[in-house]
Amino acid sequence: MLEKNVETFIACGSEYEEAKIVLFGAPFDSTTSYRPGARFAGRAIRGESYGIETYSPYQDADLEDCRVFDSGELELCIGSSEAALLGISERTAAILDDGKLPIMLGGEHLVTLGAVREVIKRHPGLKIIHFDAHADLREDYLGARLSHACVIRRCHELLGDGSIFQFGIRSGDKSEFLWAKKGHTEMRRFDFEGLCGALESIKGSPVYLTVDLDVLDPSVFPGTGTPEAGGVSFTELLNAILLVARGSRLVGCDICELSPIYDQSGVSTAVACKLLRELIIAVSAGL
Amino acid sequence: MLEKNVETFIACGSEYEEAKIVLFGAPFDSTTSYRPGARFAGRAIRGESYGIETYSPYQDADLEDCRVFDSGELELCIGSSEAALLGISERTAAILDDGKLPIMLGGEHLVTLGAVREVIKRHPGLKIIHFDAHADLREDYLGARLSHACVIRRCHELLGDGSIFQFGIRSGDKSEFLWAKKGHTEMRRFDFEGLCGALESIKGSPVYLTVDLDVLDPSVFPGTGTPEAGGVSFTELLNAILLVARGSRLVGCDICELSPIYDQSGVSTAVACKLLRELIIAVSAGL
Amino acid sequence: MLEKNVETFIACGSEYEEAKIVLFGAPFDSTTSYRPGARFAGRAIRGESYGIETYSPYQDADLEDCRVFDSGELELCIGSSEAALLGISERTAAILDDGKLPIMLGGEHLVTLGAVREVIKRHPGLKIIHFDAHADLREDYLGARLSHACVIRRCHELLGDGSIFQFGIRSGDKSEFLWAKKGHTEMRRFDFEGLCGALESIKGSPVYLTVDLDVLDPSVFPGTGTPEAGGVSFTELLNAILLVARGSRLVGCDICELSPIYDQSGVSTAVACKLLRELIIAVSAGL
Amino acid sequence: MLEKNVETFIACGSEYEEAKIVLFGAPFDSTTSYRPGARFAGRAIRGESYGIETYSPYQDADLEDCRVFDSGELELCIGSSEAALLGISERTAAILDDGKLPIMLGGEHLVTLGAVREVIKRHPGLKIIHFDAHADLREDYLGARLSHACVIRRCHELLGDGSIFQFGIRSGDKSEFLWAKKGHTEMRRFDFEGLCGALESIKGSPVYLTVDLDVLDPSVFPGTGTPEAGGVSFTELLNAILLVARGSRLVGCDICELSPIYDQSGVSTAVACKLLRELIIAVSAGL
Amino acid sequence: MLEKNVETFIACGSEYEEAKIVLFGAPFDSTTSYRPGARFAGRAIRGESYGIETYSPYQDADLEDCRVFDSGELELCIGSSEAALLGISERTAAILDDGKLPIMLGGEHLVTLGAVREVIKRHPGLKIIHFDAHADLREDYLGARLSHACVIRRCHELLGDGSIFQFGIRSGDKSEFLWAKKGHTEMRRFDFEGLCGALESIKGSPVYLTVDLDVLDPSVFPGTGTPEAGGVSFTELLNAILLVARGSRLVGCDICELSPIYDQSGVSTAVACKLLRELIIAVSAGL
Amino acid sequence: MLEKNVETFIACGSEYEEAKIVLFGAPFDSTTSYRPGARFAGRAIRGESYGIETYSPYQDADLEDCRVFDSGELELCIGSSEAALLGISERTAAILDDGKLPIMLGGEHLVTLGAVREVIKRHPGLKIIHFDAHADLREDYLGARLSHACVIRRCHELLGDGSIFQFGIRSGDKSEFLWAKKGHTEMRRFDFEGLCGALESIKGSPVYLTVDLDVLDPSVFPGTGTPEAGGVSFTELLNAILLVARGSRLVGCDICELSPIYDQSGVSTAVACKLLRELIIAVSAGL
Repeated sequence: MLEKNVETFIACGSEYEEAKIVLFGAPFDSTTSYRPGARFAGRAIRGESYGIETYSPYQDADLEDCRVFDSGELELCIGSSEAALLGISERTAAILDDGKLPIMLGGEHLVTLGAVREVIKRHPGLKIIHFDAHADLREDYLGARLSHACVIRRCHELLGDGSIFQFGIRSGDKSEFLWAKKGHTEMRRFDFEGLCGALESIKGSPVYLTVDLDVLDPSVFPGTGTPEAGGVSFTELLNAILLVARGSRLVGCDICELSPIYDQSGVSTAVACKLLRELIIAVSAGL
Repeated sequence: MLEKNVETFIACGSEYEEAKIVLFGAPFDSTTSYRPGARFAGRAIRGESYGIETYSPYQDADLEDCRVFDSGELELCIGSSEAALLGISERTAAILDDGKLPIMLGGEHLVTLGAVREVIKRHPGLKIIHFDAHADLREDYLGARLSHACVIRRCHELLGDGSIFQFGIRSGDKSEFLWAKKGHTEMRRFDFEGLCGALESIKGSPVYLTVDLDVLDPSVFPGTGTPEAGGVSFTELLNAILLVARGSRLVGCDICELSPIYDQSGVSTAVACKLLRELIIAVSAGL
Repeated sequence: MLEKNVETFIACGSEYEEAKIVLFGAPFDSTTSYRPGARFAGRAIRGESYGIETYSPYQDADLEDCRVFDSGELELCIGSSEAALLGISERTAAILDDGKLPIMLGGEHLVTLGAVREVIKRHPGLKIIHFDAHADLREDYLGARLSHACVIRRCHELLGDGSIFQFGIRSGDKSEFLWAKKGHTEMRRFDFEGLCGALESIKGSPVYLTVDLDVLDPSVFPGTGTPEAGGVSFTELLNAILLVARGSRLVGCDICELSPIYDQSGVSTAVACKLLRELIIAVSAGL
Repeated sequence: MLEKNVETFIACGSEYEEAKIVLFGAPFDSTTSYRPGARFAGRAIRGESYGIETYSPYQDADLEDCRVFDSGELELCIGSSEAALLGISERTAAILDDGKLPIMLGGEHLVTLGAVREVIKRHPGLKIIHFDAHADLREDYLGARLSHACVIRRCHELLGDGSIFQFGIRSGDKSEFLWAKKGHTEMRRFDFEGLCGALESIKGSPVYLTVDLDVLDPSVFPGTGTPEAGGVSFTELLNAILLVARGSRLVGCDICELSPIYDQSGVSTAVACKLLRELIIAVSAGL
Repeated sequence: MLEKNVETFIACGSEYEEAKIVLFGAPFDSTTSYRPGARFAGRAIRGESYGIETYSPYQDADLEDCRVFDSGELELCIGSSEAALLGISERTAAILDDGKLPIMLGGEHLVTLGAVREVIKRHPGLKIIHFDAHADLREDYLGARLSHACVIRRCHELLGDGSIFQFGIRSGDKSEFLWAKKGHTEMRRFDFEGLCGALESIKGSPVYLTVDLDVLDPSVFPGTGTPEAGGVSFTELLNAILLVARGSRLVGCDICELSPIYDQSGVSTAVACKLLRELIIAVSAGL
Repeated sequence: MLEKNVETFIACGSEYEEAKIVLFGAPFDSTTSYRPGARFAGRAIRGESYGIETYSPYQDADLEDCRVFDSGELELCIGSSEAALLGISERTAAILDDGKLPIMLGGEHLVTLGAVREVIKRHPGLKIIHFDAHADLREDYLGARLSHACVIRRCHELLGDGSIFQFGIRSGDKSEFLWAKKGHTEMRRFDFEGLCGALESIKGSPVYLTVDLDVLDPSVFPGTGTPEAGGVSFTELLNAILLVARGSRLVGCDICELSPIYDQSGVSTAVACKLLRELIIAVSAGL
């Protein structure tokens, strides 16, 4: 008898009960203000993951040895932000309640809010480490408070001052930079300098890592809605992710804003796949 | 002294006071369920319009002789359907109240609702002629009642039975076809047969024409979110548009669902430009 | 507990035991002489199938009501034709032996041979109906006898004269046309004229239908390795497929030669999805 | 000893002395007003010609049996129209003086003038048959008299009234259509109706055939600088070319306005290759 | 009453009288020897500028606070270099005579000559700072003296020895490098080393800055006619531009050779937009 | 009399007898496991080489002064690895036997084996320097021993331990890294550190250099079948190639794995052209 066609990110075929990490996709991009398409990221990452190897020469470890369950893409209501966030929160809650670590594949960056709402309920004192080209600290965007451009501001409402550490930021409204400077978030512009110190300062706290892939330079990662020149290199981002995964108590993560349609070479998707492999292996080592 | 950089659809540079027709763009695609991108249609149509001529050998008439004002793209709230519809309604109302005929460039098909809401207030007994591959008659779509997939159903709530004439339909849920069959709309599948009869039957009534460009075969028009094989040819659609424009009392129209990113040859945009030229000339002849 | 991420062609989620039809992909294109890439067709068709509806207005029937199991993509040895054909034959045999009808998604056209080798064992007197732009009747191609350009010739060695009916052929070596003319196959050039007569003449015989999608005009279907101008329209091919599915005793079929990379609009994949939906519904009606 | 890498259009490898037909490319597009790129057509046609067969099922004849020499691409001065035309004229003259028939691959349409200037010197009473979407009859274009948009007008200055027969025209300035109507050219809009009659009327005269490939519908041929919806089908153009090649005394021809960059599927280039094969075979039959 | 659709580079909506800086586009690429398309740069930059923010975290300043007038694209004669240069010179003269600083968006690099011809009339002792991958020092190119490949040589004829400072040069004919070495220009190969010294040495002189964007590495900026590997990074170019804008007396500038068609990810256009924002802000600070 | 259309890599037009270096293309990619298309590299490199200059500012030398014969593309049997390797070996042998140095343009990486088989016959003690992202050291790949993923392992069988020096490796099966570590090859991960030492250690030995272009970072070189993030820069690879060419006794080389279809900007092909120019000039200097 033939088996059903199960599709997972490469080597993430564990049974749910045995898994320590659960992947899921949040195909939502309705608030994207410039170029939509991030809804297709999860499917692309899963489908193209067979172009990379499972072994990491960076960590000398193999994805095959991690226990990961890939639960596929959520079915989200396109066009309603609150409904979509609800769907994300439900999935996150289910994973956390089963004692597993959620890794979400966006979608646009707003999806982070859906996960963080649940993570903080179970992990008071949560800190967020945020890699991004954009500050995402607007109070509202063209009238909408639930927008990719406001997502970290919304998270701040849940976590409070001193809980959010931003790196790589190189774009935003003037008011966003001013607001951060007032101490609401720790913002490092352009690169990852100070990451080690930040990790040191929050040692022991639960940490949620959110990676907006447009923190990468567009030469490395053109496949995103709002490419922003002057970003970090692949190796810089990889090292930063490994630093966080190994140097903090991660309780959830996401990778957002791949928009495959804008990079027909497939390189952006391949970059996302490789970063996800490294993230999973590093997270897995700490579980 | 230099002049400001005014950008219009080719030859649509009349002063507002003198104009009989007003163009505007509705760059909204938040409820697109498959592939977004129609928000960029208006800008593309305007920008690429310089690749066509102003003279129509089909009608032996020249766009230069029409009096058209192009008011550019609306600034709409991405992510909120009701807010976007409001913006569209306001613009439509302003144009109608000044005694001019609005031609809207979508955007996804939901934008039609914003215009129709205002048109019917001023033109009771309004009929809609609807060219499309998709029935757009769902009661709701993944829970949302304001969705491109429901737009004609919403219009029906305003106009009632016997007021909507659909042509070219070749895709939909089974229930949509059944609902139409019950007499709520006049639906012609696949082509334009019966269009003359329909026009005859509504002679004298005010008519709103909505053209979802995916009624065209995808070979002619690949640049759309949900390409649907088996469509009509350019000449068939052109002739149908001319029939309506000349054979009915048009009080408003729109052209929707060009998504330029999916056709890098530029042909889809060129097709939309040419159809818009012909529509304007034909409408203008009747004013 | 979460469920695994099962991916199927839209609405093809039956349990294996209950299924009457089994889909599988044969991701092989090693003998493609011009532009490779057909190996990615199955994944693309499955992934993009969510852009079409399950209901067919052509047949007034719904894919939801068919019982289809999608067993995903075979893992085939790239670079060895004989090994790949073996893998295809094994899957075909398993499906046939369970009393189900196999529908294969190529891959390049050589994959047909792997299926036909098994089908004929169980269905002596098998006839092949072949829709294609290319004759595929070469004795060998650059020395290789197992090549997409020879696949129908290889099938002929299994079935003999008078068993193969070719339609739409418009490209080949002069010798292929001469060989066909000698009566080895019934070849209709350019279109489907004579299809009804052919079906009549083989009434009652078991039939294998192989559709090389490049029989379509490249305007409709640019996403293929060797586009050949002057082909049939979507509607012509759809009607021909429905004729065969309803008018003959089908025991197996395949759809080949979509190469998604060459059509970045996604239209070719959408066309393949729609034809597959129609094929399944029509085949299902006869089971 | 190894041989040099000679590149020709498929099967056009005759020695110059034995050849009856000489191909050459005119890679010029400096006056293209909308989207340049036709300069790359000749190289693309030559390179991609290996994707088609040498045998024509339309004419039951083989390119292998024609005697054609391919002299490659001219080196033309980009940026100077008059210098480029001179280069084209020199090459045309050399071919004609050796008693061979020139077939030129544009380039933009202005290149035709370079060839016609020489052809008419040797063939008084020359007629031009012109297939195109655009009338190309402007007196000047933005001040330039040597422009693709004026090329047939410039030819008319050499040939006079009643010598030019235009087919498929569907775009132009109003004044161009009026000018043609005055009897300066015989213009057929949209299609090839009347072609037989025209050929009859000029029986015995020397004929130059110029094919602007944008006469084709953009669905068939998106790879061109100024796509113009509503064109002819591949089969219609093929038949028209065969009619001319067989029904008139051809003394020179060209195929223009392929711009490969705008069609990444490669279909437009494949269409041009196939038309060129058919043209050569048909011309060759009459020599 | 509705307003006309005025399109400007983001936040460049000052009234002409109040503006200190005037933008204009020079859509000309007729002498491009390899891959044309730079004529579309200005429109693309303007249209895509809404994807970036107006605030610069590099300079902690906002484009909203600069006074810039965007006069749109010139209408230039395609196909005639001298006529096009004349059009550019006229516009430049008008801006200079009104006491404003011109920033030109090419177009191919030849357009610089049109501007420099006027700038030097009003600013004797003018120096040129030239960022480029290519030396552009040819005496002529395929016979043409007005060519992108000769533009700096032509400028040298106006300015004389010791007035031109070239940086980033990594491609050219051997003779160009030799000619520069003789002291006609100061040429720095590959990078910006020595820029500070150069600025020091010309302190007080009026300076024209011309940026051929292909000085960037093609990984950062693939959308250009002649990509040349081994270029500078975005940050290096940004810093160099800021150095010049702040450290010299700028009287005019241009940014050339974006060819959007060759980068379908849109990244190259986004890079150009960001550099233009930074250039305007920096120039504005000095006025 | 006109000349045949000889197409060579730019400035490689020497007569065979006088040539010291012979280029040839090996258009084979049948074992490519992920994304095929490298078969088109040679043609693309040759065709696009006219976009670069012949002069190298890196080496202050000109390709025009080298004596290179370009023998074009081999005609290889698609679908049969052993037959293709035979064709490559024959060509390599012919070149070597005429006392010339072969430079091969792949194709996928397996083609290297065809060349090495002949080189080692004539140059016992041969060393291989291997630049690549992938280790290519598998014993077999999905059952095939002749695969791009095994090519260096196959070479090792001919050369033995201590003869192969790998640089830039950042992807592979765990077993490949272990196998290398056992001393079968000298493997440097991620970059070129240690290259000078390696060259020192093999001074005097004959050396074959094989460059898999995917050693480059995908930002620089997206046009390849299996892009692998985290690679070297253009300048790093250029310097490494120059080091080898000048610091060792080269007896053969190849450049592999450009797959032009995946980079529609043309940058990857331009990068390959420039590296080939530099390689030829450097090799030529040592002959």
